[in-house]
Amino acid sequence: MPDTLDRLKTILGEVSDLHRAGAVLDWDQETYMPHGGVQNRSKQLSTLSEVAHRRFISDEVGRLLDEAETQVANLPFDSDDASLVRVTRREYEQDRKLPPELVAELTRAGSTARPFWQQARREANFSLFAPYLEKNVELNIKVAQALGFEKRPYDALLNRTEPGLTTDQLEAIFAELKTAIVPLVADIKRHADAVDDSVLRRGFDPDKQVKYALETVARLGYDLERGRQDISTHPFSIAFGPGDVRITTRVSRDFFNECLFGSIHEAGHGMYFQGVGRNLDRTPLWDGASPGVHESQSRLWENLVGRSLAFWHHFFPGLRETFPEPLKGVDAEGFYRAVNKSYPSFIRVEADEVTYNLHVLLRFELENDMLEGKLKVRDLPEAWNELFKSYVGLDVPNDREGVLQDIHWSFVGFAEFPGYTLGNIISAQLMEKIRSDIPELDLQIERGEFGNLLGWLQEHVYKHGRKFTPGELLERVTGRGLTPKPWIAYVRQKYGWIYGLDQLEADAV
Amino acid sequence: MPDTLDRLKTILGEVSDLHRAGAVLDWDQETYMPHGGVQNRSKQLSTLSEVAHRRFISDEVGRLLDEAETQVANLPFDSDDASLVRVTRREYEQDRKLPPELVAELTRAGSTARPFWQQARREANFSLFAPYLEKNVELNIKVAQALGFEKRPYDALLNRTEPGLTTDQLEAIFAELKTAIVPLVADIKRHADAVDDSVLRRGFDPDKQVKYALETVARLGYDLERGRQDISTHPFSIAFGPGDVRITTRVSRDFFNECLFGSIHEAGHGMYFQGVGRNLDRTPLWDGASPGVHESQSRLWENLVGRSLAFWHHFFPGLRETFPEPLKGVDAEGFYRAVNKSYPSFIRVEADEVTYNLHVLLRFELENDMLEGKLKVRDLPEAWNELFKSYVGLDVPNDREGVLQDIHWSFVGFAEFPGYTLGNIISAQLMEKIRSDIPELDLQIERGEFGNLLGWLQEHVYKHGRKFTPGELLERVTGRGLTPKPWIAYVRQKYGWIYGLDQLEADAV
Repeated sequence: MPDTLDRLKTILGEVSDLHRAGAVLDWDQETYMPHGGVQNRSKQLSTLSEVAHRRFISDEVGRLLDEAETQVANLPFDSDDASLVRVTRREYEQDRKLPPELVAELTRAGSTARPFWQQARREANFSLFAPYLEKNVELNIKVAQALGFEKRPYDALLNRTEPGLTTDQLEAIFAELKTAIVPLVADIKRHADAVDDSVLRRGFDPDKQVKYALETVARLGYDLERGRQDISTHPFSIAFGPGDVRITTRVSRDFFNECLFGSIHEAGHGMYFQGVGRNLDRTPLWDGASPGVHESQSRLWENLVGRSLAFWHHFFPGLRETFPEPLKGVDAEGFYRAVNKSYPSFIRVEADEVTYNLHVLLRFELENDMLEGKLKVRDLPEAWNELFKSYVGLDVPNDREGVLQDIHWSFVGFAEFPGYTLGNIISAQLMEKIRSDIPELDLQIERGEFGNLLGWLQEHVYKHGRKFTPGELLERVTGRGLTPKPWIAYVRQKYGWIYGLDQLEADAV
Repeated sequence: MPDTLDRLKTILGEVSDLHRAGAVLDWDQETYMPHGGVQNRSKQLSTLSEVAHRRFISDEVGRLLDEAETQVANLPFDSDDASLVRVTRREYEQDRKLPPELVAELTRAGSTARPFWQQARREANFSLFAPYLEKNVELNIKVAQALGFEKRPYDALLNRTEPGLTTDQLEAIFAELKTAIVPLVADIKRHADAVDDSVLRRGFDPDKQVKYALETVARLGYDLERGRQDISTHPFSIAFGPGDVRITTRVSRDFFNECLFGSIHEAGHGMYFQGVGRNLDRTPLWDGASPGVHESQSRLWENLVGRSLAFWHHFFPGLRETFPEPLKGVDAEGFYRAVNKSYPSFIRVEADEVTYNLHVLLRFELENDMLEGKLKVRDLPEAWNELFKSYVGLDVPNDREGVLQDIHWSFVGFAEFPGYTLGNIISAQLMEKIRSDIPELDLQIERGEFGNLLGWLQEHVYKHGRKFTPGELLERVTGRGLTPKPWIAYVRQKYGWIYGLDQLEADAV
């Protein structure tokens, strides 16, 4: 049947349109929707995802995949059609494994739990949320069992988001990170006075900040013909197709980092979306390779570019023209040091580059222990606080600033946190290769030229969309599998320099 | 089967969610979507409407309707369930009559024609658009034939939007209107100097206008907890459910009427949407009774309330505080006269209350003539210009200001224009009844009290949604069928007073 692939693409295109319509509704809900719209919106979103799901897991898609697999058998692995059939098959099999009743239960449980998590967090009272988290743990176990796993339940969950990655692999990576970071954090603590970031709190006009952030990301390469920036409580990026990829930001008069680095972070995601090949549009291949690889792009642009000395050599003069008052007497290097100040803190989303991964490690360990029955939900706060003390060195004052801080556990899905650490690691692993391909990168950044960098990323990462698993992509691009070594080297060098840690000390970590 | 109705409602709820998702996408396209999003958006919109259409015309819905009809046979005509089944059946039969290929062709033809209409309009060159309009006429005839009609093709089209209304009936109404308006227009022309509206062009700060308009509609009763106002090229109102009904406006520094009356007009639609019973939510009954009845509410609030002397007695002092400079030396009555100035003009959407219906009449006659083969598309501009001269008394200078001005003919759907005139007529017919039920209405308006008026409209019109056809609704509420007499009396009285036409002269019209 010559038109098997066409028919398959037609259905997948419809499914994609339905998901994208849902994304527009999500975006609207976070930016402009009036308060009264909540109930209607939640019905609309669940209808869209149900209709899309039904269409995707239909028997017809299964038959078309069977036929298409024969048709693409002789095509190269990375061809559009072979990749489409391969990736669609993987998702189809996973989605078919989840019974419709379980899918419905997951949706219900998520929306039931959320208000209780909100209340529990507001009142710093974990016991209000505990029964719902217990239910969520139970459902995660059911999902893992339905999907199947050889060794550990977390494998099944991880395989949905970061295909090819195992829990053991991730454990080894986190162990290597912990060995490097914990002493580095202690080392920085001893040299805390080396960096003064009070300039960031001198008061920056919010409207000017938002405008400045948008101009900056446009200069990095975020295409405003196919994008826009709005304000939301939590910054996010979202794509409705190659022609419409939006970012949001938030702004605080009293802390400069929030708006600009939030915008650069989201624009990193945004440029990734904008760079996915149009040839993959309206198929399951049109997206980032995985949440971890996606996060690598937000972190690369936010930290490896936006928090670099070269970046501030270029941008600081313009910034000082925009904000002459608060920046009086400050120079590029001083500002660079300020935006990179590292200090242990309770809240993950406010954590600096060095401590961030410890926040993730903690969650990864606790999720595993809950899934494997080693940790009861009622004992979670105590376990959280103990681990936090040992990793970050702080005593958690209450559950709002501890175990209740993240929204994630109010949804059912576990295994989402590792993506944040994978993002950090992959950003550095890619950057190592970029620096060898573009040795003059820092000079280009100092001149405000980002075209080569963006072009490299488009060519090696963005345009492929979801054709490759994270592991396949890294092998293709860097010649080796996932490794935390480049990231460890990067933070050691950067923070060693900023905090004047002597080499001996830095080596010892 | 006791759950037949539940099952039917589940499916209709899904269809409703899909249409509402499409509405959110439409709203976004007109307000915030970046330029690059057009292509993706058009795919998303057509997928949503195709999926909703397929679901609605499914055999399952037919079977459920068969069963449900028996179940509701003994319920009162106006009960929720009887109305749901009756109205759903009507739409189901109509939609089933249109072959899927014809539906697809209509969508395609509309989007194909639009850019040619835009170019033709820009260049004032009708011949560029003519072939597409010919195709559209042909398709309208096909639709009329598929739907079926006894007498005239226009009947079939009209019955979809204004069920129960016939072309002959509409012709009689227009004839009555023409007899009254044409001489009134001439009469006003002779007294043109009686009204000076130069105050409206003295320059009004746009941001303040937008804010003032929003505050005003909120005071009329448009609920901002369940709504919001944005800016768009053409103002519109749109509903995503009882909890989320939005309006847009536009603003000109140099012409006051545009923003405020645009906002009141859309808020009229908005209050109608906000008042439809929540018991009808997510069913085909959740909307205005028809485009004509919907328009009656925008016109009622815009003209019969917003352009009344009582309204300006209340609002003018506040307006003068907001715009002290341009309003220096003006009083409430002078301002009232200014916003009501009538002058013949070429563009329908800029027309005043008196001449507006003549613009519609002209289109109604031309559409009928084209459908019935009495007028060739190539002869349309000449026919337009002749009629325009005889109705409005002006020589059309070019096709941009004539036959090419409206977007409507670039879509396929004919029979949409009459809704505008029906709106005017119905607004006055309802207002006649309101004045007899609330004799102190003008006093309430002068005090800025709109609660009784809004309450009356909610009780008698809004809450019923689409339960009744326009004719059924008018019979129920006013005790008689559609009649232009109250509207004719209203304009004669209002403009007679404003222009100082003596009674003899006014009677003669």
